[in-house]
Amino acid sequence: MNEMIEKILDHRSVRSFKDKLLSKEQIHEIVKSAQAASTSSFIQAYTIIGVTDPEKKAALAELAGPQKYVAENGHFFVFCADLHRLELIGEMENVEFTESIESTEKFMVALIDAALAAQNAALAAESMGLGICYIGGIRNNLDGVKQILNIPERVIPLFGMAVGYPDSLNDKKPRLPLENVYHENGYAEKEALISQLEDYNRTISEYYKERTNGVRNDTWTRQMAGMIKQKSRMYMKDFVERQKLNKR
Amino acid sequence: MNEMIEKILDHRSVRSFKDKLLSKEQIHEIVKSAQAASTSSFIQAYTIIGVTDPEKKAALAELAGPQKYVAENGHFFVFCADLHRLELIGEMENVEFTESIESTEKFMVALIDAALAAQNAALAAESMGLGICYIGGIRNNLDGVKQILNIPERVIPLFGMAVGYPDSLNDKKPRLPLENVYHENGYAEKEALISQLEDYNRTISEYYKERTNGVRNDTWTRQMAGMIKQKSRMYMKDFVERQKLNKR
Repeated sequence: MNEMIEKILDHRSVRSFKDKLLSKEQIHEIVKSAQAASTSSFIQAYTIIGVTDPEKKAALAELAGPQKYVAENGHFFVFCADLHRLELIGEMENVEFTESIESTEKFMVALIDAALAAQNAALAAESMGLGICYIGGIRNNLDGVKQILNIPERVIPLFGMAVGYPDSLNDKKPRLPLENVYHENGYAEKEALISQLEDYNRTISEYYKERTNGVRNDTWTRQMAGMIKQKSRMYMKDFVERQKLNKR
Repeated sequence: MNEMIEKILDHRSVRSFKDKLLSKEQIHEIVKSAQAASTSSFIQAYTIIGVTDPEKKAALAELAGPQKYVAENGHFFVFCADLHRLELIGEMENVEFTESIESTEKFMVALIDAALAAQNAALAAESMGLGICYIGGIRNNLDGVKQILNIPERVIPLFGMAVGYPDSLNDKKPRLPLENVYHENGYAEKEALISQLEDYNRTISEYYKERTNGVRNDTWTRQMAGMIKQKSRMYMKDFVERQKLNKR
C-alpha cells in the first residue's frame, strides 16, 4: 500500500480546530487541486466560495446547526453546483440555453463536478496536515445561505467544508463491508445484502460500545432508520426549482 | 508543494490502456479508498459495480458512445447513487421511508456521496501508476445500463470509470482562471466573470492552436455554447423519477 492510499484510508472528520488561519498560498493550493479534478465535458460546473468575514461565518454556523466549527476554523469553503456560468455563456454566444440548463441531467452534472472538486480539495488539505469536515448542515436553510453569500439563480450551495489545524482527531468509523458496496457484473441479491447489513450492525454495535464504555447501544440500520423517519429538508425540490435547475 | 498535491495537479484522463487486468488486490484497495471518503450522516449512499464480463463491457461500450476504452481497460467500475440500501433498512427496521427517500435532498446526498467516493477511487488508482477516465456516456441510456447490470429501484448509475495501465497520456487542459471559480465572501459580479471568461477564451484558443498546429480554432465559451444547444439526455428527469428518486 503506497503513501497516498495510506493517507486516503486514514481520513477522519475534524470538528475542532486551533485558532490559526490558512495562508493565501494554502488556500490557492487547495483550490487549484479542486480544479484539477475531472469535469464532465470540460464544463467545470462549480464555484467555491471562501468565507472569511466573521459575521458571515457566524451566520452560517448558526443556520447549519448551530455548529461552532463552521465559524471557528482555519478557513471555510462553500462548494456550489454552478450553471450560472453556462447562462452567461449562453448570453455571450447568443444561444438558447433554458431547456438544457434546467434539465435534471445538467443538475446532476453540476453536483458531480462540484463533489469531485471538493474531494480533491479535502485530500489536498489533509496532505498538508490540515483537517477537514464537510458541512451538509448549510442545506438546513439555503435561502439563508443564498442571501448571506449573494448566490444567483442556477447555483446551488451543496455543502461547506471547514478546514484547519486539528485540535483533536475523531476516530475512524468502520465502513460497510466491502461486498455490500462493491458488486461484480450486476447488483447483488437482497438476501445477501441484508445478511451483510446484519454483520455490519454487529461491527458498529461493538464500535459504539467500546468507545462509550458500554453506554451507547446502537446499530447502523437503527441509526439510519432514525434518520429516514425525519423527512429532513423537504423544501429542497422547491428551492432547487426556484433556482431554475432540475425542472425538466 | 507536497507529493500528493503534485499528483493531484498532474491528473489527466487516460483513454487508451495496455492489455493488462488489475489484480483483485488493486481493485480492493481502490474500493476501500472510495469507502474512506466522507459520507453525509454516515449514510454511505452509493454502490460500485465492477464489470468484468466481456459481453457486458461490450454492451456498455456501445451505449456509451461507442467508446472502445469502456471495453478495453484494466477494470471498469460503475458508480451508482444508491438509496435502495435505505429502503432495505426501512423494511428491516419497520419504518416508513417513502417520502424521505424520494426527496430531492436525499437524491443530492446520494449523488454527492457517490462522487466523493469516486474521486478517492480515482486518486487511489492514479497513485498506483494507473490511469483513469470518467465515463459520463453511460448516461446516454440508463434504461440499458439498468438492464445490463440488474439495477433495482432507488439506484441511479451516475458514471463509469475506466481504469488501467496507460498506453498514452492526454495533455492537461488549462482550467478556468482561479478567480472565476473561487470567490470570497459572496458570489462575484457579472462583469468581472465575463472578463475572466474572455481571458480564458484566449488561453484555450492558444492551447488548441498549439496542439493542432493552428488547425483547431475554438474558444471555451463557443465549445460550451455548442454543448448547451444540444439538449442532451432530456429523458433524465423521467428516468430518475421512475427509479423513485427526486420526486418530492
